Amino acid sequence: MRIIPSFPLTVSGSRFRVRYQILGDEKTARSRAEDICIEQTIEYPADLVPEGGIREHVFGRIETFVSTGSDRYDAVISYADEISGYELPQLINIIFGNISMKPAIRVMELDLSDDLLSHFNGPRFGVTGLRELIGVPRRPLLFTAIKPIGLSAQQLADMAYKLALGGLDIIKDDHGIANQPFAPFKERVMRAAEAVANANAKTGLNTLYAPNVTGPTEIMIERIHFAKEAGATSLMLLPGFCGLDFVRRVADDDSIDLPIFVHPAFMGSFALSPDFGVDHLVLHGQMMRLAGADISVMPNYIGRFSYNRDECYRITRGCAVPMGQIKSIFPGPGGGISPESFADMVMVYGLDVAYLISGNLHRQSPDLTKNAQRFREMLENL
Amino acid sequence: MRIIPSFPLTVSGSRFRVRYQILGDEKTARSRAEDICIEQTIEYPADLVPEGGIREHVFGRIETFVSTGSDRYDAVISYADEISGYELPQLINIIFGNISMKPAIRVMELDLSDDLLSHFNGPRFGVTGLRELIGVPRRPLLFTAIKPIGLSAQQLADMAYKLALGGLDIIKDDHGIANQPFAPFKERVMRAAEAVANANAKTGLNTLYAPNVTGPTEIMIERIHFAKEAGATSLMLLPGFCGLDFVRRVADDDSIDLPIFVHPAFMGSFALSPDFGVDHLVLHGQMMRLAGADISVMPNYIGRFSYNRDECYRITRGCAVPMGQIKSIFPGPGGGISPESFADMVMVYGLDVAYLISGNLHRQSPDLTKNAQRFREMLENL
Repeated sequence: MRIIPSFPLTVSGSRFRVRYQILGDEKTARSRAEDICIEQTIEYPADLVPEGGIREHVFGRIETFVSTGSDRYDAVISYADEISGYELPQLINIIFGNISMKPAIRVMELDLSDDLLSHFNGPRFGVTGLRELIGVPRRPLLFTAIKPIGLSAQQLADMAYKLALGGLDIIKDDHGIANQPFAPFKERVMRAAEAVANANAKTGLNTLYAPNVTGPTEIMIERIHFAKEAGATSLMLLPGFCGLDFVRRVADDDSIDLPIFVHPAFMGSFALSPDFGVDHLVLHGQMMRLAGADISVMPNYIGRFSYNRDECYRITRGCAVPMGQIKSIFPGPGGGISPESFADMVMVYGLDVAYLISGNLHRQSPDLTKNAQRFREMLENL
Repeated sequence: MRIIPSFPLTVSGSRFRVRYQILGDEKTARSRAEDICIEQTIEYPADLVPEGGIREHVFGRIETFVSTGSDRYDAVISYADEISGYELPQLINIIFGNISMKPAIRVMELDLSDDLLSHFNGPRFGVTGLRELIGVPRRPLLFTAIKPIGLSAQQLADMAYKLALGGLDIIKDDHGIANQPFAPFKERVMRAAEAVANANAKTGLNTLYAPNVTGPTEIMIERIHFAKEAGATSLMLLPGFCGLDFVRRVADDDSIDLPIFVHPAFMGSFALSPDFGVDHLVLHGQMMRLAGADISVMPNYIGRFSYNRDECYRITRGCAVPMGQIKSIFPGPGGGISPESFADMVMVYGLDVAYLISGNLHRQSPDLTKNAQRFREMLENL
């Protein structure tokens, strides 16, 4: 019955660790942990694999298995670095590939070896680099989106101008502004970049403009280069559509060399249930960082989304938890951010946060510049 | 308070429809439906938008809202085709972007206008084209993976040879076989393609070989062209990592011109809860088809995954439900497929299905060729 030959395998011995939450009574949960070791690696009947290299090195290995509550276990499983091939898609595939289709398993935290991490550059700017670029050493950053879909390129640019004049740190396109006939990509980016540059010339600030770059795979890089040449000073990407490794590819590219803000559109289903999926800390924190985002846009615990305070705190942790040479990044909470909310939010996010303000920015008065100034002053006095 | 100007918008009038399941009592569910109309389009305070073009054309529109059970509603919401920009990432962003981060909303079915569908080619082969290519007019296809990680390229190729000799229709790499040092991508693809070609020369069949093409974004297209030149006769892609639009880009490329099999690694969290996410019918059926997959690999209801029989039946429907000129495709159920299971599975999948056999193929006897022949004969006699 030996279809697989027994043979030695040469591996570095370096392993990476994934902490999973597993539900079930002890027997069920342990059997689920054992199944992860197989499903995420050989995906082959374990009893048909002889003693030797594959069994010893390629199988996942349960490092710890502890109860954390009623029918709830925490299992740390390690994998040989080599089975990632040192490529991001396969690394995530090992962390949560086929088991994404099995119930009761949630990825809680990544603990990657320094050797594995040395194959990834992570964010180009990170907290320190982005603060230097914008010239804001300490306070939270202020971030907004121009919108809605339906406005013309010129109208969006006018809005960008007024907001930049009010001293916001970053103006991005709304994530739903793509390449619609109302405001085609190229025209919009040219006008908005020019508008923000004009405002910067007046204010003396370095407000960044981040076009939302989405669209057909074939022309994504072309759109990014177009945006840069048109004066965009940062980029927004949607990894739910372009893929996390595309973010990594853009962050790694010296010819682009711009800060990257990621928006989690389409990715919420990973985090929404506490019983399965990918925890907020990993999804919005560690994975986005590994992919090279400088700000990870995320739903705030106040407002119209469903994330709670503790979940948002875990994202903050995921943005800053030690990960070898990978820089810390900003969480970018959006939804429900108002002048009144800063006092509580500082306890969740600290100061290394980029607040994404929108509805409340527009609602305060018809004078967008004044509204922006008011938010900025509040943060300067925090 | 009018920040947004009132102005006319020119739109085609053509709209696409999305059927959502929404949970909650009637008031809550209706308010969630109204929220979808805003969140997925303008993402801006609706009360600040004046009468006129945006309100009339850009807001989503509730077409029907009916109770389907206790605290369970079915809402069909339509959107102007234009706000998709006729680009796949933005289309999916409208269907399920920000609302992926809100609870109690599930995408149940897509009803895209013929005009919108005319911007997409869908699968290059589809059921009819793939049957012609392989030379199997009627029976289900038989599909397997070479594995596990840890085998050398030559060992994987030997396995491919034996399986192709037994008359399987498609041999693919396991989705976990990427570019590991044990069997680097190029060497593995060259050897496996050659092995399957050698077997075809003996059998007179046209068994396809599909390398798993995953890896860094920069070299994905290069890897695909390398695979084709090395003799690969189809491709496996992982949209959870490369993105759905990358599949579309490959399917559209005349210089590639190969059938595409998609594997749902990392994507299970969308479907796993019946209360939110993207229903099996849409995720594994309609979305994969729209992206251009010819076979959508999926967890079978028998075996180690958690999908049930009805969910698998819905995938079958999603693979074949009318979608303009977009061809029907094969569901590719894997997990728990044994000779004994065919009688029940035919009721779920019909004949237009590609069975992905693995464990039971290896377990029957140490002679892989004979095992493969046995499965093939069973299907020929179905």
